[in-house]
Amino acid sequence: MPFEAQDPEYERRVRESLAKQSYMAKLGVKLVRISPGEVHLSLPVRDDLLQQHDNVHAGVLASAMDSAAGYAAFTLMPAGSGVVSVEFKVNLLEPARGERIEARARVVRSGRTLSSVAAEAWAITGSDERLVATLSGTMMCLVGRGVSG
Amino acid sequence: MPFEAQDPEYERRVRESLAKQSYMAKLGVKLVRISPGEVHLSLPVRDDLLQQHDNVHAGVLASAMDSAAGYAAFTLMPAGSGVVSVEFKVNLLEPARGERIEARARVVRSGRTLSSVAAEAWAITGSDERLVATLSGTMMCLVGRGVSG
Amino acid sequence: MPFEAQDPEYERRVRESLAKQSYMAKLGVKLVRISPGEVHLSLPVRDDLLQQHDNVHAGVLASAMDSAAGYAAFTLMPAGSGVVSVEFKVNLLEPARGERIEARARVVRSGRTLSSVAAEAWAITGSDERLVATLSGTMMCLVGRGVSG
Amino acid sequence: MPFEAQDPEYERRVRESLAKQSYMAKLGVKLVRISPGEVHLSLPVRDDLLQQHDNVHAGVLASAMDSAAGYAAFTLMPAGSGVVSVEFKVNLLEPARGERIEARARVVRSGRTLSSVAAEAWAITGSDERLVATLSGTMMCLVGRGVSG
Repeated sequence: MPFEAQDPEYERRVRESLAKQSYMAKLGVKLVRISPGEVHLSLPVRDDLLQQHDNVHAGVLASAMDSAAGYAAFTLMPAGSGVVSVEFKVNLLEPARGERIEARARVVRSGRTLSSVAAEAWAITGSDERLVATLSGTMMCLVGRGVSG
Repeated sequence: MPFEAQDPEYERRVRESLAKQSYMAKLGVKLVRISPGEVHLSLPVRDDLLQQHDNVHAGVLASAMDSAAGYAAFTLMPAGSGVVSVEFKVNLLEPARGERIEARARVVRSGRTLSSVAAEAWAITGSDERLVATLSGTMMCLVGRGVSG
Repeated sequence: MPFEAQDPEYERRVRESLAKQSYMAKLGVKLVRISPGEVHLSLPVRDDLLQQHDNVHAGVLASAMDSAAGYAAFTLMPAGSGVVSVEFKVNLLEPARGERIEARARVVRSGRTLSSVAAEAWAITGSDERLVATLSGTMMCLVGRGVSG
Repeated sequence: MPFEAQDPEYERRVRESLAKQSYMAKLGVKLVRISPGEVHLSLPVRDDLLQQHDNVHAGVLASAMDSAAGYAAFTLMPAGSGVVSVEFKVNLLEPARGERIEARARVVRSGRTLSSVAAEAWAITGSDERLVATLSGTMMCLVGRGVSG
């Protein structure tokens, strides 16, 4: 699965797009790794991201994995395009507790219009990492529809 | 699909559980409808819930639908139980813009351990309502595992 | 959700396409209802469609629901187009036993390129009908790619 | 992800269960690899497994991946248990053509009641292998419910 980016400016495009996402900023999400077909996002586990059992809410995991997966697909899209989520499924594997969450996404198959993506959410405390959720999804490349990023 | 709640205190249980979810409070989520097997949640569309094209982030829609769906299942669970998400799939239908988002969830089938649930996310502006996303998922009933709500 | 077909010949297109599916013939699948945005398929429960507990195999249910859902989307596509499945999720609700299976699909949202679809599988014995599985999926319209049907 | 089988007779259990599946026999499915947490099934591409564009029907891919995934989970379950599918999502990546299909499944996380599984469908012609579909799913372990296998 060695992908090649058709746009050498892919990292700049991803960073600019992520910077426009007010919701990712609200969650404290940072880009921690990027390469063609792969994006990792990280966010600190804060007291305002929890569900009723004091674990990180499944929606937070889904949000971070969805953004990571969308940007993984976006790294392979042409300049001037936009990316939107078509669908994603999230499987919750165990309670998400730790210091931070890392959402690690990669492209499974990149097509002209649709890309298949996969992501994992890891709960990290010091050097301990636990896989807490997975995502499989479909991203769509928009060209000439008045959106970019 | 006329469900009957085995615990007459189901509404109190849902409200208490929702009140413990710091993340739902952060998103501004309120309970707007509850009956056996059905829960509707509503949240205002604020500037800090958007993605890069200024639409509501798919993760916000997923978060609200996941909580609504979990609580729809929870209305049918016995007293003293806890509910957790096993999995959910979200399909994004169109850009989510409006004054508020309503996540409307219902139980499709209620089992002793697992419940199948469905939800819709509607973007509402005045009296205009648009279906922007759907969810299908599985919720699990935990009994005697040290969690409730 | 009152859909209108842009191609008045939609029923003929669906019937011709279904007739080309050797696998649907192998399963004994028949078209039992069609209208714009909706298709129902039916198949008899035979001894060679079972899994290890003598229920209808989940894959048979998925196959019938996928075809029904694809054709539901296809009823709304233009003349000369082709339909392919992008993704689908199946939830199994209870053991599938009965005389026949009916897969009932409808379009949730019809777009130019992608359509969101939903389907249910019912196990039917005489006048008794039980909902045994659900599907949510995405279908793609192909135009000018050398495929039709 | 190095799993250990709690039942040393896991392979016998899988083979006996697969032998009971009339539908897998109908599709021509054979077990080609088994180890704790992993099962590969293979089937020849025959003329009666196709959809309207003469590719292998998505339902056939789903059927083989579902069975492989169920048995991957079953290798880790205790003696006397039964396995059923809760849900699965299939993403179709490209047209499935070739001499045979191999469904390769592995356990992502094994729990007492629920297991998370992943599978891939490969279309194989000679030494050429193409990834044509992926599955992510949930399998359930039944104990003392009158079913085994």
